[in-house]
Amino acid sequence: MAKVVIVGAGFAGLAAMSTLSDAGVDVTLVDRHNFATFQPLLYQVATAGLNPGDVAFPVRTLLRKRKGVTFRQGILSGIDTAANEIALVDGGRIPYDYLVLAMGATTNFFNVPGAEENCHAIYTLDEALAVRNKVFSLFERAASRGSRDNTLTTVVIGGGATGVEMAGALAELKLRAFRTDYPALDPAQARVILIEAQDRLLGAFSPELSKYASAELKGRGVEVYLNTTVEGVTPEGVQLKDGNFIDSRLVIWSAGVGVAKQFAELGLPQHRNGRFEVGEDLRVKGYDNIFAVGDVAGGILGEGQLLPQLAQPAIQTGSCAAESIKSLLNGGITKNFHYKDKGTMATIGRNAAVAELTGGMKLTGTTAWVAWLALHLMTLLGVRNRLSVLLNWSWHYISWGRGPRVILGG
Amino acid sequence: MAKVVIVGAGFAGLAAMSTLSDAGVDVTLVDRHNFATFQPLLYQVATAGLNPGDVAFPVRTLLRKRKGVTFRQGILSGIDTAANEIALVDGGRIPYDYLVLAMGATTNFFNVPGAEENCHAIYTLDEALAVRNKVFSLFERAASRGSRDNTLTTVVIGGGATGVEMAGALAELKLRAFRTDYPALDPAQARVILIEAQDRLLGAFSPELSKYASAELKGRGVEVYLNTTVEGVTPEGVQLKDGNFIDSRLVIWSAGVGVAKQFAELGLPQHRNGRFEVGEDLRVKGYDNIFAVGDVAGGILGEGQLLPQLAQPAIQTGSCAAESIKSLLNGGITKNFHYKDKGTMATIGRNAAVAELTGGMKLTGTTAWVAWLALHLMTLLGVRNRLSVLLNWSWHYISWGRGPRVILGG
Repeated sequence: MAKVVIVGAGFAGLAAMSTLSDAGVDVTLVDRHNFATFQPLLYQVATAGLNPGDVAFPVRTLLRKRKGVTFRQGILSGIDTAANEIALVDGGRIPYDYLVLAMGATTNFFNVPGAEENCHAIYTLDEALAVRNKVFSLFERAASRGSRDNTLTTVVIGGGATGVEMAGALAELKLRAFRTDYPALDPAQARVILIEAQDRLLGAFSPELSKYASAELKGRGVEVYLNTTVEGVTPEGVQLKDGNFIDSRLVIWSAGVGVAKQFAELGLPQHRNGRFEVGEDLRVKGYDNIFAVGDVAGGILGEGQLLPQLAQPAIQTGSCAAESIKSLLNGGITKNFHYKDKGTMATIGRNAAVAELTGGMKLTGTTAWVAWLALHLMTLLGVRNRLSVLLNWSWHYISWGRGPRVILGG
Repeated sequence: MAKVVIVGAGFAGLAAMSTLSDAGVDVTLVDRHNFATFQPLLYQVATAGLNPGDVAFPVRTLLRKRKGVTFRQGILSGIDTAANEIALVDGGRIPYDYLVLAMGATTNFFNVPGAEENCHAIYTLDEALAVRNKVFSLFERAASRGSRDNTLTTVVIGGGATGVEMAGALAELKLRAFRTDYPALDPAQARVILIEAQDRLLGAFSPELSKYASAELKGRGVEVYLNTTVEGVTPEGVQLKDGNFIDSRLVIWSAGVGVAKQFAELGLPQHRNGRFEVGEDLRVKGYDNIFAVGDVAGGILGEGQLLPQLAQPAIQTGSCAAESIKSLLNGGITKNFHYKDKGTMATIGRNAAVAELTGGMKLTGTTAWVAWLALHLMTLLGVRNRLSVLLNWSWHYISWGRGPRVILGG
């Protein structure tokens, strides 16, 4: 039986797995974690709206009904393209006839001095939990010792969807938490600052939605700094290019995604941004049996556009590569990838979101927010997780109370 | 206004807080965590039946409706009994007119060589999460590399309620997880061994319930070793006094609770077991304004009996001390403590538990199990947590699927 190895159990890898299961292929799915993370909701784990378990789904549970698929927890360390074998950090080796690379993206700090050392990202579950612990630890410290300084200021760098969602959730959390749980603290000191280098938020959306998002965030107490470049980040705060310094103990970096630096060691052709060079059929250039999908699939696709690093393109590339493999195994040819843009959404907070659908339809406000909730609930993996998220959301909406706001560890 | 400081937000401290709130007293509740842990269900977090957030409740949320109570996150480092002031590790100092010590118990390894270094306890939320991560990491490792050795054997040391509950939950988890998620692994290799030094499990219950528990556990695949003394624990496993060695990578210590060694530095009179010496009114001997309640209240109470380190005595001592403080503030006298034994329960697994109620009534099987579920659900803090636990339990019961079985961190 032909062996297909898929590295990465994110949206792209799971889509590929799903297409290849029950197809008479021996599929091995490899991931560093034993669970798949629903990244679009990580910012809610970071702001104590959801449990970590709500956005994580055990891979093995996913595979129960999939025939021919086995899971292997491990981290890719190398590809022996001559022997058609991958190597894992723990010493394991897995042979393949076809290899699908779907390791996903990581935070890109763009070499801004001090950013990597002093910023939090919210790209993995552990990172999201670290942010939650930090937020509440800072609240507790301020409540215990008096907050005469600016130590409660949170800075979010990057005004894309992630930054907007995070800033909105932080503003809501502070507003609510201060009123009920920290009456001794002054909400005015808990500033939430959102920094964007361009002249508008949500650059991927139309200008009118950017304007709406900006106004909504401001209405919720977020300070939006546009046309603002970060020169560096220190343990004390953020240095701006215009000379100003923002004192802050919690800086969240949502200014960009990239791929892990270690991918360079794999010996595959990479673009300047680190993503693998692929042809129109998503095969890595120079290789007949290696596909790159999702956030690691680089290069110019379709009409000269860079594929956005989002769930939809990930799912579509994963399925497309898997279809090509099935076709190749049956003596056919590969399929070229064509991106179907279904539109994008971002939530700002209670009753406020933006959505831009294909065909130019734009939604804002409660309509967009409800659509956002419904879409995310439907795409979550697992009925238990859906029920738990629904419970937490309903609870939060009715009671304005945040659920799992406990500081774990340390 | 009189100042009362309560150290510890467990069952005892919260009961004291509750009795003193709205009583015209200035109460400060101090705890090292910002949440109260529902310890009776920690073993379910350890075996992936519940989310960590389900058994943790934010202290500040508890205090929302309590007048006159403030929370301070911190760790007690000393008591200045001359100045009537406590000191915290972070340098903070809090003055008191009355002090209630309710720091709770910790694991007691009884100086068994290697036990502290090589055993996991399940007494705090972090410890329970560490066990969960270890369980699934071992499963993954075995599934990836083949399990030819005994690395999947779990040893639980101590056959009291905690040990019985943990062993039962582990047996169920393995049985289920192996059938669905790890078909490549051999269940026979995943032994669960429960070790008890006495001649029966559940020493605090009547012999017939011990017999029932033993039979139920064995029926679920747990190997029960009675009259077995542990001589030492190493990274490779457990050395028994009879010369046998059990190869194991996961040893759980549930053989005893004690108090933190650091309490010796507080300068208060302690029993040999470390618990503070108290009079019949729970005041620490030699001090008029310091009470010890819950697991740290030591000594002989009532008719020569040592107070068990459980939720019920904790709640009752906490309330009693608080009543005494109210009385003293009104010019009255303290109240002597009388323990009302309401009975005890322990669960073994699906449809099996034991309960021994006051008056000699004994329950086993499904009746006891349902009673156990209902009691624990009712005593959990917070409606959201109750709903979430109910969801997870129902889900688990119907689907036999364990929910939050993700490996966090590392």
